[in-house]
Amino acid sequence: MPEFVVVLVEPKYSGNVGAVARSMMNFGVRRLVLVNPACPLDQACYARAMHATAILDAAKTYSSFEEATKDLDFLVATSSVEGFSEKYHLRNPVLLDKFAVDCKQVKGSVGLVFGREDYGLFNEEIAVCDIMVKIPTSDDYPSLNLSHAVALVLYELYKERAPKRQRRQLGRVENDTLQSFFAQLLDAIDYPAHKKAQTKIMFRRIMGRALPSVWEFHTLMGVFSKALSRVKQPRKKS
Amino acid sequence: MPEFVVVLVEPKYSGNVGAVARSMMNFGVRRLVLVNPACPLDQACYARAMHATAILDAAKTYSSFEEATKDLDFLVATSSVEGFSEKYHLRNPVLLDKFAVDCKQVKGSVGLVFGREDYGLFNEEIAVCDIMVKIPTSDDYPSLNLSHAVALVLYELYKERAPKRQRRQLGRVENDTLQSFFAQLLDAIDYPAHKKAQTKIMFRRIMGRALPSVWEFHTLMGVFSKALSRVKQPRKKS
Repeated sequence: MPEFVVVLVEPKYSGNVGAVARSMMNFGVRRLVLVNPACPLDQACYARAMHATAILDAAKTYSSFEEATKDLDFLVATSSVEGFSEKYHLRNPVLLDKFAVDCKQVKGSVGLVFGREDYGLFNEEIAVCDIMVKIPTSDDYPSLNLSHAVALVLYELYKERAPKRQRRQLGRVENDTLQSFFAQLLDAIDYPAHKKAQTKIMFRRIMGRALPSVWEFHTLMGVFSKALSRVKQPRKKS
Repeated sequence: MPEFVVVLVEPKYSGNVGAVARSMMNFGVRRLVLVNPACPLDQACYARAMHATAILDAAKTYSSFEEATKDLDFLVATSSVEGFSEKYHLRNPVLLDKFAVDCKQVKGSVGLVFGREDYGLFNEEIAVCDIMVKIPTSDDYPSLNLSHAVALVLYELYKERAPKRQRRQLGRVENDTLQSFFAQLLDAIDYPAHKKAQTKIMFRRIMGRALPSVWEFHTLMGVFSKALSRVKQPRKKS
């Protein structure tokens, strides 16, 4: 997995830079590079960064795009606007989610390059990037807020390397036990015999779709077990 | 595909509401509902909305969560913070990308519910939602900016329903023609015979990974064809 570096080219609003820093920390990316920023990293910037001020403190500023990117191994131009024609190679993009999968093979440092709030990246900046990545958006209004664009790109990249926290899924034996409890409950409440088979299948399907965790299983078992014992309790004759 | 409605519960900063509106328009979602907002939809809000002011104009405000959500068919609580234990059903989440796929089956209107900037959603609000969706983030700093959270959720939902703009991929015949041109070029430049086979395979693999479009194919063919004719041009003896 490469190291990701966020490169903001001539950002205009310090609040956006702060929001970018926060988003970087949300998705575990630490290196921020600013090319010729048109705003200071002021109070508004630090306020929007919230707990990510260390990223702003460590941000490096360069006066040219070339200087800023010369030690990065792979450059990714980002945009939500693509060329109108496939003939126009410069803006012939790869979709973000495909890139997120592919880029795992890239070694070294990957610069994720984001353009100005108003004009995006210039053609000569896109031209020197190795790939152009498009964030899919509605044709009615494709232009994303700068920090939103950064958040979306970092989110897709994060998903690919996020620790897979598997919930313990229900095993076959546990699931069968649950189904059997449900069947017993149907018996105990004198559920109409001709509906039983269908209702049991329905319950199995619901659990199949919901994929309950082991804890959810235990809670449901507790409910069924308690319901069963109550239903079976001898009652006073009415 | 259901209709999506963004529900903001007690937002505090009008700039965030504006940024949410912009993001909604970026991803083709038009209905915005505000529950007891702690901020007016002021100048800052409209400025951040950019071209999405119509969404702010049409936003509906309610004084209670119950009132705001009573005509919605399915409610989705969103969070980047999950419960610490699987025993805690309330915050037992489904991951955002899985939800985006599953929810295509939901009929009617789906309320995407986002909490306060500082405290998120209260437990009693999460409890009445049909599902809780988690946006995966780094454990170091899971708390997302409100408008970022909205953008990420709407982006995942948009991806599922976005028009698939397939580029025309290279067909077998075209690809073979390209490979044959490359082979002719190797011959014409007297490329070392013992390396030819490997280099041809390499070129085929590169094209296989890059999946060039028909236009890219034509451009490459143009280059190879021109190179071939130049190489074959009779030269002056040196």
